[in-house]
Amino acid sequence: MIAPSAIVTLTTDYGTADGYAGALKGRILTIAPRAQIHDVTHEIAPHDVLQGAWCLRRAAPRFPPGTIHLAVVDPGVGSWRSGIVVETEHFLLVGPDNGVLSLAAHEDGVRRVIEIHEQTRHWRKSASFDGLTVFAPVAAHLAAGMALDAVGQDADDLVSLPEPRARRAGQVLEALVVLSDRFGNAITNVERNQLEPGAIERVLLPRGVEARPCDHYAQLAGSGRVGAFWNGDGLLELALFQESIALKLGLKPGDPVRVILKAL
Amino acid sequence: MIAPSAIVTLTTDYGTADGYAGALKGRILTIAPRAQIHDVTHEIAPHDVLQGAWCLRRAAPRFPPGTIHLAVVDPGVGSWRSGIVVETEHFLLVGPDNGVLSLAAHEDGVRRVIEIHEQTRHWRKSASFDGLTVFAPVAAHLAAGMALDAVGQDADDLVSLPEPRARRAGQVLEALVVLSDRFGNAITNVERNQLEPGAIERVLLPRGVEARPCDHYAQLAGSGRVGAFWNGDGLLELALFQESIALKLGLKPGDPVRVILKAL
Amino acid sequence: MIAPSAIVTLTTDYGTADGYAGALKGRILTIAPRAQIHDVTHEIAPHDVLQGAWCLRRAAPRFPPGTIHLAVVDPGVGSWRSGIVVETEHFLLVGPDNGVLSLAAHEDGVRRVIEIHEQTRHWRKSASFDGLTVFAPVAAHLAAGMALDAVGQDADDLVSLPEPRARRAGQVLEALVVLSDRFGNAITNVERNQLEPGAIERVLLPRGVEARPCDHYAQLAGSGRVGAFWNGDGLLELALFQESIALKLGLKPGDPVRVILKAL
Repeated sequence: MIAPSAIVTLTTDYGTADGYAGALKGRILTIAPRAQIHDVTHEIAPHDVLQGAWCLRRAAPRFPPGTIHLAVVDPGVGSWRSGIVVETEHFLLVGPDNGVLSLAAHEDGVRRVIEIHEQTRHWRKSASFDGLTVFAPVAAHLAAGMALDAVGQDADDLVSLPEPRARRAGQVLEALVVLSDRFGNAITNVERNQLEPGAIERVLLPRGVEARPCDHYAQLAGSGRVGAFWNGDGLLELALFQESIALKLGLKPGDPVRVILKAL
Repeated sequence: MIAPSAIVTLTTDYGTADGYAGALKGRILTIAPRAQIHDVTHEIAPHDVLQGAWCLRRAAPRFPPGTIHLAVVDPGVGSWRSGIVVETEHFLLVGPDNGVLSLAAHEDGVRRVIEIHEQTRHWRKSASFDGLTVFAPVAAHLAAGMALDAVGQDADDLVSLPEPRARRAGQVLEALVVLSDRFGNAITNVERNQLEPGAIERVLLPRGVEARPCDHYAQLAGSGRVGAFWNGDGLLELALFQESIALKLGLKPGDPVRVILKAL
Repeated sequence: MIAPSAIVTLTTDYGTADGYAGALKGRILTIAPRAQIHDVTHEIAPHDVLQGAWCLRRAAPRFPPGTIHLAVVDPGVGSWRSGIVVETEHFLLVGPDNGVLSLAAHEDGVRRVIEIHEQTRHWRKSASFDGLTVFAPVAAHLAAGMALDAVGQDADDLVSLPEPRARRAGQVLEALVVLSDRFGNAITNVERNQLEPGAIERVLLPRGVEARPCDHYAQLAGSGRVGAFWNGDGLLELALFQESIALKLGLKPGDPVRVILKAL
C-alpha cells in the first residue's frame, strides 16, 4: 500500500462563484489542518464526466507519489452510484464511481478499489452535496492518516469509461478524436507506443482535410495547414497554428481519423 | 475574542486575468509570509454584491475556526462606504461595508463590527483598488497577529442585504427564489427548520409549473419533472435532472414560489 | 544576486479544465516539495502574450522578494524562441522569450537574462508542452535551491513588447488605451509621474467623448459620465460607474486618447 501524502488535489464541475468549491476546501482543512490543497480545476463543464476524467488523467500522474486526488463530477449525486477510493500504483483517487476516476486509474494501474461505506461517524450521504459530506471528508481523513481499510469494503472493480483504441488494418490506423482542448486542438486515441518512430505518412480528417506529421507546433506558422504531432501525453494531436481546429474545421470528439502509415 | 488563524480566504469579482487577484495574494504574503491563502473565488459577476454574499455564506462556515475571510465585491470603491472587520462566532470577515459580508456574518452570529481606520501606516485608501491598499493589508496583519483593536473603532452594525423570510399563511408558505447556481438550480428562501419533516405536499412555480418533494436529485432521472429537496445549506432547492431550471423554465432570483403544506 | 524563495506563481493561458495547469503544479511539487504555489491566473486568452505580460506586471511586484514567477503564454511553443530566466531587482521570471516576461521585467529593472539550456538532465524540450517539460522544472529547481548559473548561458537581452509612451506636445499629451480589464475599464499609457498633480483638465476620447478627472470611481455615480483617475499601477484609467466603457463606448486597446493639460 502506498502512504498517502498530505497533498489533496481538487477536480470538480462546481465552478467557484457559488461557494461550493470553497466549502470543500474549508471542510478538508477542518479535518486535516496540514493538508496542502491544490486546485486542478473547478471548471469542468457541468456533469461532463468525460472531460473530468481526461483532466484528471493529465494532471494526477504529475503529482508526488501518495497524492490524494479528489474528483467530483457527479450527475447522479444522491443516487444509486457508490462512492469509491481507488489505490493506483502511485496515488489515491476519491470520488463517485461513475467513470470520472477511471482514465487516471487505468493509466497508472489499479491496485485496489474500495467502496465508501457511507454511514460512519466520519461522513454521511446528503441529498445534494456528496462532495462536501462524503468525498471531502474521506479525502481529508486519508490525508490525516486514516487507513484505507477504514473507508469501506473492497470492491471488484470500478465503473470505467470506454477507451476505444485505434485499430490497425494493414497500413491504416482507424482512430478518432477523443477530446478538444481550450486551444481548440483535437486529441486523438492514436498512441505513440502503437507505432514506430516516423511511421506516419499523413492523417485523413473528415471533409477531405489532410494533416501532415510535424515535430512541433511552430512548424505550422504561416502555412494554414493542419499538423499532427505527439503531445505530452503520448497521444497524436491535431492543430492549426494559433487557430482553433475545433472552430475552423468543426472537428469534434467522436469524429473519425484515419492515419496512413508509410510503406516499409 | 476568537484567535485569528493564519488561513486567509479570498472572495472577489476581480477575475484572475487582469492580475489584481494575484496582486492581492502577493500583498498578503509580503505582510504575513506564513499565511495560508485559499481562493474561494474571483469569479463573482462584476459588482454583484448579492452573489458574493451568498458565495461567502456557503464557504466561510466550513473553514477552521479563526479563519480570516477577505471579500471584495465593491461597486462603491473609493467612496463613502466604510471598510469593516466583522468578528462572528467562528471567524473574521474583512471587506467593504456594503452587504457582501452580511449573509455570512448573520448566519454565524455577529459579535463585533469594527470600522477600518483608513489612515494608518499599515494601509491607506486608494482611488481604485482598496482591495490591495486596505483590505488585503488588514487581513494580512490580522493573520500575522495584529489585535482587532488596532483595526479601528467599534461600529454599531454592518450594512446588511435584505434576507426576506418565507411567510406562512395557513397551509401555504409564500417564498421566493433567492439564487441560481452554476447548474441552473434555483435556491429558495424556504428553510428546513421552518417546517416539520415531510410537511411539503407540492411547490407551485410561475407559469403553472409544479415541483414535487424528493429525497435526492437522482430520483428525477428520466422524469423531466422539477424536484424540490433540502440542499446542504438547509434551504429548499428546485432542480431538473441534469438540466438548468434557470434556462429551461426561466426561473430567476426574485420569482415567487408557493409551498403547499400537507394537511395535518 | 537575489536568493530565490520557495514561492512560485503561475500565469498561463492554459485554462484549468484540460488539466495542463494541474500538471504544472504536480511537476513543480514533485521537484520542489516545499514550494508554495500560487495561481496568478490560467485564464489569459489563448496566445494573448500582451494580456499575460500586463497581468504579470500587475501581480509580480506585490509578492515577497525572491518570488519565482512562471509565465507561459506561448504561441510559438516548440519552435525557434528561447526559454529564459530573468533576474530583476526583486524577483525571478521564468518563461518563453516572447515578450510575456518583458513588462514585469522592465518595470522592476532587469539585472540578468539567462537563456535556458534545454538539453540537460533536468529538462528537455517537447513538441507541444514546454510549460511542463522545461519551464516548470526550471522554476521548481530554482525554488529548490539550484543556482542561476545552472540554468544556461547569459544572454544580452530579452524580447520586449513595445511600450509606447504618451508623448507631450505643449499642453497636450498624445496617449492611447493599452488594456481593458474585466470591468471594461480602459487603462492608458499616461503615467502619473509624467505629470504634475492636478495637471489634467480633460481627456478626449474617440467619437467626441470627453472624460473628466476625478479622485475616485464612486464620484461618477449617477452621472453617466466618463471619469479619469490614477489607478493602483500609477496609470490613467478611464471608467463609467458600474458599466463597461469597453462595451458602452467601444473603447479598445490601441484607441487614441488626448489628455488636455491645464494652462499654468
